[in-house]
Amino acid sequence: MALSNVAAGRARNQTSIEKAVTALTSTFGNRVVTSQSVREQHANTLTWVPNQPPDAVVYAQAAEEVQQIVRVCASHDVPVIAFGTGTSLEGHINAPFGGISIDFRDMNKVLAVHAEDLDCVIQPGITRKALNEHLRDQGLFFPIDPGADASLGGMASTRASGTNAVRYGTMKDNVLAMKVVMANGELMTTSRRAKKSSAGYDLTRLIVGAEGTLGVITELTLKLAGIPEAIASGVCPFPSVDAACNAAILTIQSGIPVARIELLDALQIKAVNSYSKLTLPEVPMLFVEFHGTEASVAEQSQRFGEIAKELGGGPFEWATKPEDRSRLWQARHDGYWAARHLRPGAATFATDVCVPISRLADCVTAAQRETANLRLVAPILGHVGDGNFHLSLLVDLSDDDEIRRAGLLTERLVELALSMGGTCTGEHGVGQGKMKYLLAEHGAPALAAMVAVKRALDPQNIMNPGKIVALG
Amino acid sequence: MALSNVAAGRARNQTSIEKAVTALTSTFGNRVVTSQSVREQHANTLTWVPNQPPDAVVYAQAAEEVQQIVRVCASHDVPVIAFGTGTSLEGHINAPFGGISIDFRDMNKVLAVHAEDLDCVIQPGITRKALNEHLRDQGLFFPIDPGADASLGGMASTRASGTNAVRYGTMKDNVLAMKVVMANGELMTTSRRAKKSSAGYDLTRLIVGAEGTLGVITELTLKLAGIPEAIASGVCPFPSVDAACNAAILTIQSGIPVARIELLDALQIKAVNSYSKLTLPEVPMLFVEFHGTEASVAEQSQRFGEIAKELGGGPFEWATKPEDRSRLWQARHDGYWAARHLRPGAATFATDVCVPISRLADCVTAAQRETANLRLVAPILGHVGDGNFHLSLLVDLSDDDEIRRAGLLTERLVELALSMGGTCTGEHGVGQGKMKYLLAEHGAPALAAMVAVKRALDPQNIMNPGKIVALG
Repeated sequence: MALSNVAAGRARNQTSIEKAVTALTSTFGNRVVTSQSVREQHANTLTWVPNQPPDAVVYAQAAEEVQQIVRVCASHDVPVIAFGTGTSLEGHINAPFGGISIDFRDMNKVLAVHAEDLDCVIQPGITRKALNEHLRDQGLFFPIDPGADASLGGMASTRASGTNAVRYGTMKDNVLAMKVVMANGELMTTSRRAKKSSAGYDLTRLIVGAEGTLGVITELTLKLAGIPEAIASGVCPFPSVDAACNAAILTIQSGIPVARIELLDALQIKAVNSYSKLTLPEVPMLFVEFHGTEASVAEQSQRFGEIAKELGGGPFEWATKPEDRSRLWQARHDGYWAARHLRPGAATFATDVCVPISRLADCVTAAQRETANLRLVAPILGHVGDGNFHLSLLVDLSDDDEIRRAGLLTERLVELALSMGGTCTGEHGVGQGKMKYLLAEHGAPALAAMVAVKRALDPQNIMNPGKIVALG
Repeated sequence: MALSNVAAGRARNQTSIEKAVTALTSTFGNRVVTSQSVREQHANTLTWVPNQPPDAVVYAQAAEEVQQIVRVCASHDVPVIAFGTGTSLEGHINAPFGGISIDFRDMNKVLAVHAEDLDCVIQPGITRKALNEHLRDQGLFFPIDPGADASLGGMASTRASGTNAVRYGTMKDNVLAMKVVMANGELMTTSRRAKKSSAGYDLTRLIVGAEGTLGVITELTLKLAGIPEAIASGVCPFPSVDAACNAAILTIQSGIPVARIELLDALQIKAVNSYSKLTLPEVPMLFVEFHGTEASVAEQSQRFGEIAKELGGGPFEWATKPEDRSRLWQARHDGYWAARHLRPGAATFATDVCVPISRLADCVTAAQRETANLRLVAPILGHVGDGNFHLSLLVDLSDDDEIRRAGLLTERLVELALSMGGTCTGEHGVGQGKMKYLLAEHGAPALAAMVAVKRALDPQNIMNPGKIVALG
């Protein structure tokens, strides 16, 4: 039955679901919640993907409980969906075939901090801000910052990155090991705490970015960084997107270890000025940040300023005092809300392509041109050190034609990125929203390998089904 | 038949092998070689693992040819083993069930260098020295340096790292994408050239470190680094292994971006002095190297010197002139030969455990104690920034009891490392030699997941069988 289920895809089975909910309630009592409002909160909220609530939410408190839940679901052939904070953007937490959402709110402990090893062991429900709050006293921080105050389990599952990735890497580079409840209810340890290993297949990297489709993460060992002795940051105007992108390329090529380098296009600057009460020149700008010693951040800042000038940009004004730095970076962090503020009442669709950095200016410029041609409004924010950028497409949901044009732009943007050696998603993940692009992006043999791995590790297709790969 | 073959493990099938060799010869003519000497050269040479030659060696010239070879082997149910330079250490290229070795000697081209993107596209047979020779004019280099002049395909397959890993990461961090011939003969592209992606399962990291057991790599896209503007390096004596390890910990904790930090114990220094005609003090020493601007390498060197002094080490003497730097690092690079020189005629077994850096001093000290207790000779070299170290066990192969004691020490060292949260192999890989440790290291659920992935992607078990995971 499991096999035919896979072959035929999956359908909602009301009777099985009811049996599973009953079994879970008998074990977990009032930690199983089935109210409409809670179920809807545990489905997709932050995007255009429709809300598909699970049938029940269970608030787990330990790995053993997660194992129990998965075993109940496996025995009734019912889907299991892990839930962190619900800030994912591509329908990752929706329950298209119904099923049980496991909420990790209560599994939010820091289990160990190993300062000498620069690592920590945590439960998946802790958010990045809470973790950094915990670490601050020890002079340590976890550098991945996707913007939202997401849970670390969710960040690992979507392979999140954000503004610091150009220096510190993405989640794939910062998860050392995990404990994962597999589809058969067994608790797998993916790796050990040693900083590197060649001991077999890289199960850690297989689970990072798997979006809960291969197993449910119940513990993470993360790499940490020391809080830098000095931080310098500033903003720099450029005459064009092209000049700003070239400045980013030269900065990286010349080995300046920039910690953040973010592009805001003229429209995004306009939004930021209005929302954050700033008076920046409304031209393409780079927001940059350097980490190091006092001497080294001064040297980095000076060298960046020279590169910017060479490309017609500047003046580059930078500061190392926290109060001077924080106002500008707060404005950058509020970029999403600033964009929404440009057109109150509109919905926001965030795109997420990523291209080789040499093609970034072409891709951003083409995106701006297509946006204008389609009469749409979409300020741009880019993690330009990685070649990754987001359009915040502001769409009036009462206008069907505008929705259609927004869809066209999204498709066109993915086509553009793929034609440039890029990807449909640099950091948001596949979820439901990007599944249709994977064949074009990876080709049939890679997609077949993904399907084979999914079937091998989850033969019943109960782990977050209907995400990443379509079976059957 | 394929399935029962998996279930029963694998046995040598002479008739099938002969048919496959005949079919390959009809296609590839004199590029199929079956002489005893060539076959033995294509089996294991650099370790204690016995030589198990393949039945034929085919010199491939293109991915399409690799696909043809794999299809012939699949149709006759015959093993396929990829061969780079034969410098692996754990029996990776042996043919325990016979089969066909694909030699990548002739697939050694650089296909593209994208300087702006800091990446290149290469064939798997090129060695790291040849690649770096090719890149030098453009001010670029590929930073992974495992010591041997290995092929990049082999380095990816074993997840190699070496002396630069503390700063630049290992092969898993520096391979962006690959083309891989799968067991069914299809050519899979694992990922795209974009610097990051969240588009589905991480097939790149699944193939890196898979030792040819999931597919054969025919092309790699690698990240590159800019040749640093300045390099400073030097050596620093310490009163104990403990003090040297603590200096490494403090260096990393304080955010000094050290490029190499290598421990040599007193016996290894003695070997180096004798082999390389140096007069270093015969105490534990750190060899360190810093990359950056003139100002930053000076600052890093000075800060490291302060840390060393604080721990009773020093004086730390450093230099930035190439001629001053190269003699010492040449001695470090010759460490393996220097070790052998301590006891001419003895065989060398290299161990490869890796532990969390906080446990490194304990582990190294325990290893020295056990070595003495077992009356063995084994100088130590360590990539201490990663917690990884090698004993060069010098063994008289005519002395059965010494061989037994060497085996005991190896086992004991793995037990020690595992008990400290470490791994049996930091960078050499599993091959045949480390298979027996994987269950203790990873646990049954992880090993089951590895087996499931292997079966899913190679149901006939023809891709380098008898390595990493035992089937049946």
